[in-house]
Amino acid sequence: MRYVDLNCDMGESFGAYSLGRDAEILAYVTSANIACGFHAGDAGTMRKTVKLALDNGVGIGAHPGLQDLIGFGRRKMDISPKEAYEIAVYQIGALWGFVRSEGGTMQHVKAHGEFYNMAAVNPGLAEAIAEAVYKVDPELILFGLAGSELIKAGEKAGLRTASEVFADRTYQSDGSLTSRRQPDAMITDDQVAVKQVIRMVNEGKILSRQNIDIGIQADTICIHGDGAHALEFAQNINESLKQAGITVQSIGKTISGKS
Amino acid sequence: MRYVDLNCDMGESFGAYSLGRDAEILAYVTSANIACGFHAGDAGTMRKTVKLALDNGVGIGAHPGLQDLIGFGRRKMDISPKEAYEIAVYQIGALWGFVRSEGGTMQHVKAHGEFYNMAAVNPGLAEAIAEAVYKVDPELILFGLAGSELIKAGEKAGLRTASEVFADRTYQSDGSLTSRRQPDAMITDDQVAVKQVIRMVNEGKILSRQNIDIGIQADTICIHGDGAHALEFAQNINESLKQAGITVQSIGKTISGKS
Amino acid sequence: MRYVDLNCDMGESFGAYSLGRDAEILAYVTSANIACGFHAGDAGTMRKTVKLALDNGVGIGAHPGLQDLIGFGRRKMDISPKEAYEIAVYQIGALWGFVRSEGGTMQHVKAHGEFYNMAAVNPGLAEAIAEAVYKVDPELILFGLAGSELIKAGEKAGLRTASEVFADRTYQSDGSLTSRRQPDAMITDDQVAVKQVIRMVNEGKILSRQNIDIGIQADTICIHGDGAHALEFAQNINESLKQAGITVQSIGKTISGKS
Amino acid sequence: MRYVDLNCDMGESFGAYSLGRDAEILAYVTSANIACGFHAGDAGTMRKTVKLALDNGVGIGAHPGLQDLIGFGRRKMDISPKEAYEIAVYQIGALWGFVRSEGGTMQHVKAHGEFYNMAAVNPGLAEAIAEAVYKVDPELILFGLAGSELIKAGEKAGLRTASEVFADRTYQSDGSLTSRRQPDAMITDDQVAVKQVIRMVNEGKILSRQNIDIGIQADTICIHGDGAHALEFAQNINESLKQAGITVQSIGKTISGKS
Repeated sequence: MRYVDLNCDMGESFGAYSLGRDAEILAYVTSANIACGFHAGDAGTMRKTVKLALDNGVGIGAHPGLQDLIGFGRRKMDISPKEAYEIAVYQIGALWGFVRSEGGTMQHVKAHGEFYNMAAVNPGLAEAIAEAVYKVDPELILFGLAGSELIKAGEKAGLRTASEVFADRTYQSDGSLTSRRQPDAMITDDQVAVKQVIRMVNEGKILSRQNIDIGIQADTICIHGDGAHALEFAQNINESLKQAGITVQSIGKTISGKS
Repeated sequence: MRYVDLNCDMGESFGAYSLGRDAEILAYVTSANIACGFHAGDAGTMRKTVKLALDNGVGIGAHPGLQDLIGFGRRKMDISPKEAYEIAVYQIGALWGFVRSEGGTMQHVKAHGEFYNMAAVNPGLAEAIAEAVYKVDPELILFGLAGSELIKAGEKAGLRTASEVFADRTYQSDGSLTSRRQPDAMITDDQVAVKQVIRMVNEGKILSRQNIDIGIQADTICIHGDGAHALEFAQNINESLKQAGITVQSIGKTISGKS
Repeated sequence: MRYVDLNCDMGESFGAYSLGRDAEILAYVTSANIACGFHAGDAGTMRKTVKLALDNGVGIGAHPGLQDLIGFGRRKMDISPKEAYEIAVYQIGALWGFVRSEGGTMQHVKAHGEFYNMAAVNPGLAEAIAEAVYKVDPELILFGLAGSELIKAGEKAGLRTASEVFADRTYQSDGSLTSRRQPDAMITDDQVAVKQVIRMVNEGKILSRQNIDIGIQADTICIHGDGAHALEFAQNINESLKQAGITVQSIGKTISGKS
Repeated sequence: MRYVDLNCDMGESFGAYSLGRDAEILAYVTSANIACGFHAGDAGTMRKTVKLALDNGVGIGAHPGLQDLIGFGRRKMDISPKEAYEIAVYQIGALWGFVRSEGGTMQHVKAHGEFYNMAAVNPGLAEAIAEAVYKVDPELILFGLAGSELIKAGEKAGLRTASEVFADRTYQSDGSLTSRRQPDAMITDDQVAVKQVIRMVNEGKILSRQNIDIGIQADTICIHGDGAHALEFAQNINESLKQAGITVQSIGKTISGKS
């Protein structure tokens, strides 16, 4: 039996500003990465989103980002491992406040945007994030790009990890994502994307842009939550995985063997 | 045997800006109210201050404030009880992250500045803060102005509370603090302040500005941490209380009977 | 010949967050109040909105607000006249930077949300804002609620003022707006709103909720820019005013006699 | 006759946080770079500092920084030229508001911290900043590291520029500053620093760390304003330059020939 988790970024509204279709997309994903107020989200949005995630029975994760609201956490910032550790602890703690007050438990931590990207390739930042997660709660599952420094750092720290793959992105032969600056970085044909995902889960393999079969660990699939097509795609991928005999459930359930 | 707690606001530095003499004042107080990033403090300062408090064996409290960094949380803001609840949960959670990652436990919550003042007289805000504290952790002790709505709300919510008194302020016959707009709001003679505090702890009484003896509950005394005199005053009050036979220890120890 | 200005809040997007239908509504208004980054807006949005306003030939105004992004400047804050002066100068200057760099001129200043509301009834805040506007540029036109302290303060400071009326709100006999807490605060029938506005402009009169005819100065009409109906209403009010023989043009043109 | 300007960063306090000894150091410098609220400073501090600079007759400059208050604008951020342009216009405009309302004129613009450093080597960012300055006011003088991309971009844009040198830093043979990661980056002997500065001004030459004489343009010297020694050093350098027959005056005066 194969299992896979579908995760999606959520709770990215802020004050008067509304973003994303959280309530609808929750029907098709099994884990929610909830923004913690640095790159997006605010206290009211966090509370509402935690409640929404609990009502839908999906795994709840903290989604800490760089302290750059205006740039949505997508601009590289030259932070030290010490700063990475501190902003991770702060944001995980803040979300924990809402998870606890709503009577739930936190399942995982997934860094956001450039915080995630930098930690994928920078061992110092990766270890700082892994240490932050471990020290706040060693039971938390650390999400990271499959094959990245973050996954290595998580394992080294003694954490359980979830290797993340992207349905709509192409891969290089070294296992890294094709840069968005390349023309063929995105997979625009949904059926191609779905097939790629199913193969990653079932066979642990993917064909790189260089036409070489490489091994890849696919514990959780990243689903984008914005745009009308996102909803349709989430539903499509969810159903296609099930039709392929794969059990779609939160990574927490899979790891705990409570399927 | 009489017991009293001495509490002080801490961790109010921010980025490149340094404020307060935390390390020194910790020798004379028993509880630290640590800023959580809204009115002051940042992730790095919170981590350092939690560690410092643990090293000194003082009780650690979250010190949530209004989201007004430029005004240091001292400007009244018209927030709803819902917003009060949410910013309290967020900030308590954020500090919890550091307390947990440093291996400690959180003792109490004390609202800051105008958040504290508004909750002292506004039952809706008081109940919202009490609910936030209770839902995050019912074992937390809620600090509030002696006789205030916040103390009433805390008791109603099922929380243990600590009634706070001020050493250097005068009181009205209804138990409220004399407004700082009045000329005799502050006690500038240290010996007068010390005597007032000892009487509040030993007899549960204070002479109001109208020369009437009123009852007052004094579980914890607020010590200000900025300025050179603050340090001297903290030491003076700490020693004077001990000489008067009063045990100066954190409210957590007193409540738990671990004296 | 009667003249009236139609003004609308604009440039309220922020970072990844989009708000309002600025480009469309600009076809029907004659003055744009552009957010300056405190309650909404950011540098990129300000630049884009200034350019858009210039392209449409509408009068450009700074729209300074309280420093409360999370509350969109709609929460009352207890700021001093000194602080009001300072945040007004800062924000007017910031917008001036874009007006100047895009080759335009600034026409007016309109305070936002609670900054506007507080200044309408608080002479100290009103005078502070008027002083800020005058000192930055005495040629600027100060917008304020008709009959308010802000209009009085503007005249006293030597500024030209524009008395603002609301198309979709009802008025009390003392000239103030009916509180939104009252059931009949809003006018939901567009034709009633349009007739009220035309009478205010043509006759300088309005029937209060208490059925008393009161005098009112209507130099500029506030149009709300969010929602699909807003666009339709803006078009409706624009055309109805013209059909009633009223010239709809920016207040700057009217005051300068450049009609 | 030789002329040189002494510039210093100022107005870096924020809310309750005080930084720098602006009032004292103003006696020894001729140009003030005033923080504009992004990396440091706030509206009240800007007003006060502009007034202080005017009272001391020094040239006033906007000191725009990266939008990173917590990092004091010292952390590299991956911003686009478009974003650089926009945050420069915004901050220059904001300071202009205070310069105008206090009855002064703005002399120059000097980017802060990593905004300055990035623009020194990145032509795209340098041109964006130069364009922002030019479009806001072509009379403004653009400060930049001597020999940097920023100076080149300023000249290309048609701006007057001021090449900045550092008294207490050593230089490489290509004219760049020795990285602070190198042990000999700083000059700790004041007399060595003073001699280096005098030679830069009088001869337009400096001996690099590789013992090669290189040409350098020294229009303005950067003085650091924090620390007790800073004050003494500012006084020392000011007096030593005068004793060497160099006229110490603001760059604006020198350029305008109003000596």
